[in-house]
Amino acid sequence: MTSTTRKSNSTAGKTVSVHGLLERTVGRITPQDQSLRQQATARIEQLTMPHWALGRLLDLAVDLAGMTRQMHPPVKRKAIVTMAGDHGVAAAGVSKYPQAVTVQMVHNFVHGGAGINAVARCCGARVVVVDMGVAGDLSALGERIVHRRVAAGTANLADGPAMSAAQALQSLTSGISLAEELAADCDVIGTGDMGIGNTTASAAIGAVLTGRPVADLTGRGTGLNDAQLAHKIQVIQQALRINHPDRRDGLDVLAKVGGFEIGGLAGLILGAAANRKPVLVDGLISTAGALLAQALCPQCTDYMIASHCGAEPGHRVMLEHLGKKPLLDLGLRLGEGTGSALAMPLVDAAVAVLTQVATFAEAAVSEANQ
Amino acid sequence: MTSTTRKSNSTAGKTVSVHGLLERTVGRITPQDQSLRQQATARIEQLTMPHWALGRLLDLAVDLAGMTRQMHPPVKRKAIVTMAGDHGVAAAGVSKYPQAVTVQMVHNFVHGGAGINAVARCCGARVVVVDMGVAGDLSALGERIVHRRVAAGTANLADGPAMSAAQALQSLTSGISLAEELAADCDVIGTGDMGIGNTTASAAIGAVLTGRPVADLTGRGTGLNDAQLAHKIQVIQQALRINHPDRRDGLDVLAKVGGFEIGGLAGLILGAAANRKPVLVDGLISTAGALLAQALCPQCTDYMIASHCGAEPGHRVMLEHLGKKPLLDLGLRLGEGTGSALAMPLVDAAVAVLTQVATFAEAAVSEANQ
Repeated sequence: MTSTTRKSNSTAGKTVSVHGLLERTVGRITPQDQSLRQQATARIEQLTMPHWALGRLLDLAVDLAGMTRQMHPPVKRKAIVTMAGDHGVAAAGVSKYPQAVTVQMVHNFVHGGAGINAVARCCGARVVVVDMGVAGDLSALGERIVHRRVAAGTANLADGPAMSAAQALQSLTSGISLAEELAADCDVIGTGDMGIGNTTASAAIGAVLTGRPVADLTGRGTGLNDAQLAHKIQVIQQALRINHPDRRDGLDVLAKVGGFEIGGLAGLILGAAANRKPVLVDGLISTAGALLAQALCPQCTDYMIASHCGAEPGHRVMLEHLGKKPLLDLGLRLGEGTGSALAMPLVDAAVAVLTQVATFAEAAVSEANQ
Repeated sequence: MTSTTRKSNSTAGKTVSVHGLLERTVGRITPQDQSLRQQATARIEQLTMPHWALGRLLDLAVDLAGMTRQMHPPVKRKAIVTMAGDHGVAAAGVSKYPQAVTVQMVHNFVHGGAGINAVARCCGARVVVVDMGVAGDLSALGERIVHRRVAAGTANLADGPAMSAAQALQSLTSGISLAEELAADCDVIGTGDMGIGNTTASAAIGAVLTGRPVADLTGRGTGLNDAQLAHKIQVIQQALRINHPDRRDGLDVLAKVGGFEIGGLAGLILGAAANRKPVLVDGLISTAGALLAQALCPQCTDYMIASHCGAEPGHRVMLEHLGKKPLLDLGLRLGEGTGSALAMPLVDAAVAVLTQVATFAEAAVSEANQ
């Protein structure tokens, strides 16, 4: 980490070190509780079904008990946090869509017309839309979105650092403080993103933090053809060559090749982990945020649930680096939090099985022969 | 098919050919509607997201439109049909559990304490428990279950046919008539099973209908060790050698190596398809029923949704033969309809995306560059 500190702009009149907030948050993150994991495992082994017959749903139930320290993990109150930000690299022709779409889609989220709105409604999650730094004025939306704008989009990472170290820290602490607020009335958090150009930044982060070749991490995003994909790979290779981000320093990687919404998501995950809240990680961009969070605090992965593996080839590479097996594999490549929302019902089902299924003794069912 | 006909025992006083019911049902099954599939595809291509960015969820939305002939496919009213039956082959030591567990688990279903009860509650599905032929008296349960008992368990398929041709037909038509009843107040049907020994019958059906070696279809069921698995394979090989089921004749395969609940599930799927109801297919046993339904009427696969691929190796082989890609892959091996219920939220989400997401024009979002 850098030694940058600055005043928080959300606590007027108080001198609070935002770097201090990051350090304090990381310091609060502890591993899952082993005792609760053992209790959940012991109960599951007595349920009226063959041993571990619901497979990974039962693994998830054990994780939820270990995360929340409860045999009845609370999961009812759900929020999808969709963080939006713009990217200077969009000027390099790495997306099929114009940058204006980021602002347009934020309006679409607010009006309930986007994919995430439809899917979140199905699973009973509210959608919290956050302006982390889009290139357009969203002040007219007032309290319908959360305003944490760092700047009007990042600089072009192919020409130099995407943001300053101070901006990187601000995006992280904005995510942390939002998680702190959500922790008061929310049981499960799902991550989501919006930002034209952000698969480019995410692939760059992924290449740095996994140590794999750029080509392994880079995909077609919103639908690039072969020539456009080759260009995108070159842009990322140039960004790494010019900026030489330090893979041992998550904050440096974020500043050099990241995005405001990606930093926000990393902070959100750290804040969720510090509050022992399960956090569903969405697609490529959210997973880049998760890799940054892991780089800043390896233990925070104990609170991540990989909701899905998407169509972008880099997503699987990054999930492997996190040591996470995704719940769904449906070829998604939308982001917005749609994968997180689609996996929410599996969280509910895991808790229902842990808490509602009778044991052999309770139901007077014969156990297996040896 | 055989030429067997018999009187239906559910329509006292009327002479109804139950073989006629099967033939009429098969005759009513038509492919998905291509026009509705095209309309749904055209709408999805205008939704505010990159092209087909929700992957297989959108494929599912097109299927649901094609099955139901509606651009707003009704999916709210859900039922999981859990069919129970016993198997004479249980005497051959192919399961770790005693046969009594089938009856005990039916009581557990009725009391709401089983895995399927917990998962079905989560997705708002009712659970319809059907006695297709368990080895025990369930009459005391009255209307809390559906009574379609063919006999008190099948004969041991390792010694001869599991059932008579008439019993095979009865199990099929019982499933069809149940689907007809459910069609009146149910939008989506999920299949489920319970029956000690039924992975053995299902693997036998799978081996016959896919033409693959028995060992490729046979798994550990409720948890067999290596020696027990080898024994199970030998039992199935013996069953095929003794009975030589005719793979061109689904009814013959059911009679020789099937089970009453498996025949019931095949009939349920045919009845659902005739009524244009989407039917979620659960695990190995349900998929064996789906293979039988396919053998009797190949077009009925147009109404099947493969809910998951389970831990039993034969399940993937059978799904490939059906030409179906499963929605979930969570290592499930419980049956009961749990996989169907876990996939139900994806059906809701697919419809929500098709019907609730704004188009580019509606939301004033810029479209992609070429």
